[in-house]
This record gives sequence, C-alpha cells and structure tokens, in this order.
Amino acid sequence: MILVYDVGEKRVNKILKKCRQYLTWVQNSVFEGEITEGNLKKLKMELNRMIKPNEDSIIIYTFQNTKYSNRQVMGINKNYLDIIV
Amino acid sequence: MILVYDVGEKRVNKILKKCRQYLTWVQNSVFEGEITEGNLKKLKMELNRMIKPNEDSIIIYTFQNTKYSNRQVMGINKNYLDIIV
Repeated sequence: MILVYDVGEKRVNKILKKCRQYLTWVQNSVFEGEITEGNLKKLKMELNRMIKPNEDSIIIYTFQNTKYSNRQVMGINKNYLDIIV
Repeated sequence: MILVYDVGEKRVNKILKKCRQYLTWVQNSVFEGEITEGNLKKLKMELNRMIKPNEDSIIIYTFQNTKYSNRQVMGINKNYLDIIV
C-alpha cells in the first residue's frame, strides 16, 4: 500500500511516528509497505483519532496484487540514504 | 498513475506546473491521473531536465489495471476543495 499525508505542522511528528510503526518512509510525506487488513484497520483508527478532519488529509492506496503495479524513481531514493546515514 | 515529488524549494513551482499539465493535483506533493505511455515518457523527460538528481526525488507508480487498486481518503479531499474555491 501507499500512504500519503498532508497534515498541519503540529500533527506531523505524531502522524510520522505512527505511520513508521507499520510502514516504510520513502519520501517527504509518503509511506509504502505491505500491511495486513487488521493492521490497516488499526492504523486507520489511530490516524483518525490524530487528524483534524477539516484541515488534514491522508490518502491510502491499496492494491490487490502488486504484480500489476510498477514503481519508478527519478533522482535520489531517499529511503536508502536515510538508512545509510 | 500516482506521482509523488520531494524537490528543492526553488524547483517546486516548475515541477508543480509541469505535473499539472498532465495530471490532477490531489494533495501537497501528490498527483494522480490517467496518462498515455507517450505522455508519461514526455513528462519523465521534462521532469528529468528540471530536477537535481542528487537532491530531488520523484516516484511514479503506474498500474496495469485500476480494477485491483483502491483509494481511501481520510480528512479532507483537498482537490475537490481546490476546484470549488
């Protein structure tokens, strides 16, 4: 799955920390990861409690089968740098 | 397809403008859209010329069939607001 967030500055750190528990940070406000249905439900419940629904936005894309999807990176692959540094 | 970018402040406006030519802006640094293979190639070439490969990062996710993908929004759906305002 892919998760992208756009939340108020005050909530960024909490959201980031929560997402990191379940997913891999890949770019600025983007996470990727394989997640069970149960954990996805849990993550969504927890995020729902954190966000301001009239200010923040989180979009979650899930895929039945990654076989049909493709990922291309232009420029640096920040996550790898993040791991190295 | 989904396009996410994380680029230096100086290049944000140019990248944004370029992506808007082909895709729909949905959140902070996220675009979505259906795009032909020819236009994707063109967009990638143009973005490649704009980014600093050792500082910026753009990830493009493409899907053979959107039938297998799902999109969930939590909080506001910024793009719709954007269209209304």
